[in-house]
Amino acid sequence: MEWIEANNKLAKTYIFKDFATAIAWMVAASFEIEKLNHHPEWKNVYNKVEVILTTHDAANTITEKDRVLAKKLDAI
Amino acid sequence: MEWIEANNKLAKTYIFKDFATAIAWMVAASFEIEKLNHHPEWKNVYNKVEVILTTHDAANTITEKDRVLAKKLDAI
Amino acid sequence: MEWIEANNKLAKTYIFKDFATAIAWMVAASFEIEKLNHHPEWKNVYNKVEVILTTHDAANTITEKDRVLAKKLDAI
Amino acid sequence: MEWIEANNKLAKTYIFKDFATAIAWMVAASFEIEKLNHHPEWKNVYNKVEVILTTHDAANTITEKDRVLAKKLDAI
Repeated sequence: MEWIEANNKLAKTYIFKDFATAIAWMVAASFEIEKLNHHPEWKNVYNKVEVILTTHDAANTITEKDRVLAKKLDAI
Repeated sequence: MEWIEANNKLAKTYIFKDFATAIAWMVAASFEIEKLNHHPEWKNVYNKVEVILTTHDAANTITEKDRVLAKKLDAI
Repeated sequence: MEWIEANNKLAKTYIFKDFATAIAWMVAASFEIEKLNHHPEWKNVYNKVEVILTTHDAANTITEKDRVLAKKLDAI
Repeated sequence: MEWIEANNKLAKTYIFKDFATAIAWMVAASFEIEKLNHHPEWKNVYNKVEVILTTHDAANTITEKDRVLAKKLDAI
């Protein structure tokens, strides 16, 4: 699945084999998020994690920061 | 802040001192969630975690399972 | 790397690409550990996690519990 | 319990109410560790986490880096 760009947001849903794996991925992702100091809105239900990226400091538009984090998350 | 009951859902937003603490709380909460095998919809943005509880197997109504998990989460 | 059996213990060192990945793996592993209610001695230094398994309830010998957890950890 | 200084190392054992809480604390601690880029040797067994700090780049002596991380861990 790819990142979807809509309403000035980048969104992607990651699907894992189970809840534990989804949470472990969120932990790994959190280190990248902290390093970039760019915090997403993200939602978990069981084995799914939906990530929504936008830059509040840039009037809620998609910026380079969002694209960098998107790439980092895909590389985990 | 308390649990709010609306639209057949129990909802609560937990607020932490920072992102790292919010994620660590989600990890602790995940063990309770797995033990009860009752997975919430939950959303994180920076230091906030919004938890939404409902029971899919009971036609998306609030059941005892939701109330038990709510208490467990409050006790972490 | 394989599990090494010595002194009534099963031991293995997992090596990851970095610290964040090691910690995320420990989180995933923790769910299996809790499910089996069989807690290892494990040690982390940067990208390495050394796991040592033995069964205290069986006079600190290697039992089926240790072998089951070992398999679960390898499957993460 | 306090930090114990011996053999050019700072050591402390944190005790938690259960395994899940210990692991959640390790996750919170990991963010501080990454931020300081100063990785301890730490060991978990059930509800205990033993942390051992030393600075490899300073011929395995205790340095200011170890003391800073020790304080950060105590403040979690």
